[in-house]
Amino acid sequence: MVTLGKRLWVEGVGTAWLVFVGCGSTVLDTSVILQGYGSLDVSLAFGLAFATAGYAFGGISGAHFNPAVTVGFTVAQRFPVRDLLPYIAAQVVGAISAAALLVYVASGRPGFDPGASEFAANGFGAHSPADYQLHSALAIEFVLSFAFVMVCLLIVDRKNLAPIAPLIVGACLTLVYLVSIPVTNGSVNPARSTAQALFVGNWALDQLWVFWAAPLSGGVVAGVLFSFLNGDTDPSAATLADGPGDAA
Amino acid sequence: MVTLGKRLWVEGVGTAWLVFVGCGSTVLDTSVILQGYGSLDVSLAFGLAFATAGYAFGGISGAHFNPAVTVGFTVAQRFPVRDLLPYIAAQVVGAISAAALLVYVASGRPGFDPGASEFAANGFGAHSPADYQLHSALAIEFVLSFAFVMVCLLIVDRKNLAPIAPLIVGACLTLVYLVSIPVTNGSVNPARSTAQALFVGNWALDQLWVFWAAPLSGGVVAGVLFSFLNGDTDPSAATLADGPGDAA
Amino acid sequence: MVTLGKRLWVEGVGTAWLVFVGCGSTVLDTSVILQGYGSLDVSLAFGLAFATAGYAFGGISGAHFNPAVTVGFTVAQRFPVRDLLPYIAAQVVGAISAAALLVYVASGRPGFDPGASEFAANGFGAHSPADYQLHSALAIEFVLSFAFVMVCLLIVDRKNLAPIAPLIVGACLTLVYLVSIPVTNGSVNPARSTAQALFVGNWALDQLWVFWAAPLSGGVVAGVLFSFLNGDTDPSAATLADGPGDAA
Amino acid sequence: MVTLGKRLWVEGVGTAWLVFVGCGSTVLDTSVILQGYGSLDVSLAFGLAFATAGYAFGGISGAHFNPAVTVGFTVAQRFPVRDLLPYIAAQVVGAISAAALLVYVASGRPGFDPGASEFAANGFGAHSPADYQLHSALAIEFVLSFAFVMVCLLIVDRKNLAPIAPLIVGACLTLVYLVSIPVTNGSVNPARSTAQALFVGNWALDQLWVFWAAPLSGGVVAGVLFSFLNGDTDPSAATLADGPGDAA
Repeated sequence: MVTLGKRLWVEGVGTAWLVFVGCGSTVLDTSVILQGYGSLDVSLAFGLAFATAGYAFGGISGAHFNPAVTVGFTVAQRFPVRDLLPYIAAQVVGAISAAALLVYVASGRPGFDPGASEFAANGFGAHSPADYQLHSALAIEFVLSFAFVMVCLLIVDRKNLAPIAPLIVGACLTLVYLVSIPVTNGSVNPARSTAQALFVGNWALDQLWVFWAAPLSGGVVAGVLFSFLNGDTDPSAATLADGPGDAA
Repeated sequence: MVTLGKRLWVEGVGTAWLVFVGCGSTVLDTSVILQGYGSLDVSLAFGLAFATAGYAFGGISGAHFNPAVTVGFTVAQRFPVRDLLPYIAAQVVGAISAAALLVYVASGRPGFDPGASEFAANGFGAHSPADYQLHSALAIEFVLSFAFVMVCLLIVDRKNLAPIAPLIVGACLTLVYLVSIPVTNGSVNPARSTAQALFVGNWALDQLWVFWAAPLSGGVVAGVLFSFLNGDTDPSAATLADGPGDAA
Repeated sequence: MVTLGKRLWVEGVGTAWLVFVGCGSTVLDTSVILQGYGSLDVSLAFGLAFATAGYAFGGISGAHFNPAVTVGFTVAQRFPVRDLLPYIAAQVVGAISAAALLVYVASGRPGFDPGASEFAANGFGAHSPADYQLHSALAIEFVLSFAFVMVCLLIVDRKNLAPIAPLIVGACLTLVYLVSIPVTNGSVNPARSTAQALFVGNWALDQLWVFWAAPLSGGVVAGVLFSFLNGDTDPSAATLADGPGDAA
Repeated sequence: MVTLGKRLWVEGVGTAWLVFVGCGSTVLDTSVILQGYGSLDVSLAFGLAFATAGYAFGGISGAHFNPAVTVGFTVAQRFPVRDLLPYIAAQVVGAISAAALLVYVASGRPGFDPGASEFAANGFGAHSPADYQLHSALAIEFVLSFAFVMVCLLIVDRKNLAPIAPLIVGACLTLVYLVSIPVTNGSVNPARSTAQALFVGNWALDQLWVFWAAPLSGGVVAGVLFSFLNGDTDPSAATLADGPGDAA
């Protein structure tokens, strides 16, 4: 068993990678300014970030990189509850570190201002790329988080898919972003949302609760439903630290 | 053997996923308004939706998510005829549920109106993205449905490809949409067409017959041709519920 | 051993698929009219077409779908010389059939005229998307055909890659088109060029020699170099009909 | 063991392929002129170039194709130090040959001038696509080179991933380019930067030090950190010529 300390480092670094390249693909590219334009680039960046980090680190921490995933795996009894808060803390710290680094890189562009440019923060209403209201944001984040965590749980459960699991989960994340970018800028991940909101401030912090409530609820429901569907399996048969990127 | 009830749930949920994210990638993104612009995004969304649902559910229901596939597998004697209508019913119900959810999410955008925006419905003539007439719509939907179902049949028959079958079939679906979006908005799937048409009404319902007739005919011809080419194989050797997403 | 007749059918149908969806992705989509715009869509369509047909048919014919590949495999003694001309004939007939079907589908668009729209034909000078002269066309088609056939030969030789060989070769074809579309509209395949040129006529037929000479020369050089590099291997050890899509 | 001479040829040819198609995808396509527009095409071209060359050549040279990778593997004691300089020389010579060939192909376009068009050279300040200053260029190139080399080291270490290693590393390269193109035009590879700078001259040569200093530093830090994390493994257990593309 890998020590908790090493697993927390890995979760932090993996989440940092997700935020640095995922959010970086839109923050650094000034041509991605129209709503929707370039959303494929950004969606692919998030998906490829998950896949690469999942392959690099999956054998160590389970490669969650997302509090909603960790909550879902905990509820489904695929992850030890005592590690839940440390994992989430590591993910949030990693995400914030990456956003700080992104501010440093972006500061070299004349006129860059994280608050004014929205800095890839998530939002609804006037801060949704296409002005979607609160109920749309809640619905899309809840449904897609539920589906994403459910796919993670179902894939990890099929051991013969291990060598391509990070690829499948990364593809699912790309898909989730393709659909949600026009509505909320794409989250399904409270750590990613928190990091960007801290640097944007004001409205982003006010709206941040949506991007904790909806993804975590989606993760909980996925975990409950998964347990119900697999009621006859022995939870002790699975290594509790297994995760979507576990390709070992 | 998984119970029929569970397999029907899975077919319904998988088809709902296909419609929610596939159609959602164009319905929610107001920048995908020009003919062809953004067709790669939408094509990828459909392909990735199939692949992810195929990996998640393939071992349970065979992952058809499409009446044309179920018809093709039935004709090819790879699927029990007694489950044909239940499967199709589950797929259509799942698709309609997803379209209803999509209407709910999209309703948060100021000015959204499913009828006026066409809501990703399939059509020809004035309702084709590039004004293609009926014979083009029938031809492209027939040919691509035939090819899609044939690829499903041929891939499922090669057991060594099982771990990547959902990926291959998803890639094929992306390809099919890249080609057909300018002509009909892309269907090859009567369940997907029916769901969107119900919410658009009027012309979409009038033209809906095309998107049942052409895909199902394509599926039937694929099934017949496949049986002919494999005349010497013993149908009982294959698990009848096998499908393109069966990666078990 | 599969009969020659069946292998020829498969080569014809596979090449038809490549031309129908590859060329169809640009011919049918009126938004792909600016030079370069949409070249990713078209490049992906060709790559996915090869990959899907390779998986469907690889175990039967070797999945060449391209006279340059067949010539390269023959020169490298990986393919029986007595089947060379029948294979090329089947590929050309398949490609022409697909182009005829594409004309039928496209004819439903008001104002469609294959000659005027260039119909995805290959060309140089005034018929190159960016006005590239003859020497550029010859160079890019020769170099990329050489590289493409060499990748096919090297991949097929590594038996442990068999399950993903069609995916790798398809990715290589996508790459080849990404680079060559601005120069020649992308060929590396005389069968694909011939089919489109027949329907465009005039200049396309005049320039067609380039798209036989350069790809076939590239294939020959790849075959010679491959043989030289593998001088110590026993050619009889490989099944002669092996090809890039042989995932059996 | 493959002879050093053959491995050097392979490193040179593989790096040439990376430069010819990667840089070619932007140099030859005159529509890729706006900052950011088309960056997905170019990013995919680099990633697919690595993946295809990695599959073709991985079993021979380890498929580095990048001095930063070779330095990182040397520091991590996964590559013999006596082959370090020959590998780097072969990579630079291969890259320059490819850039020369690219000049020849591009010269067929009326008005082409490598200096004026920047010819895909890397730069900062006025030569960054979005005017990023020096500190942004250094930071992004250092961080992404570190991450890229670290992913290579971690993937190669997991032997069960060998059949898909070139695909994962290619995906990582696509991701790295998606993020860095707006800042520096994308490098993480001193050989690629040197080749283009030689043909652009002037400012590109003045700024070239950045694209040696940052990627090599990133590679060194990755090598050191990897050794530290794997302190308990026996370096002699790994074949020293192993590399990210070693799918044998």
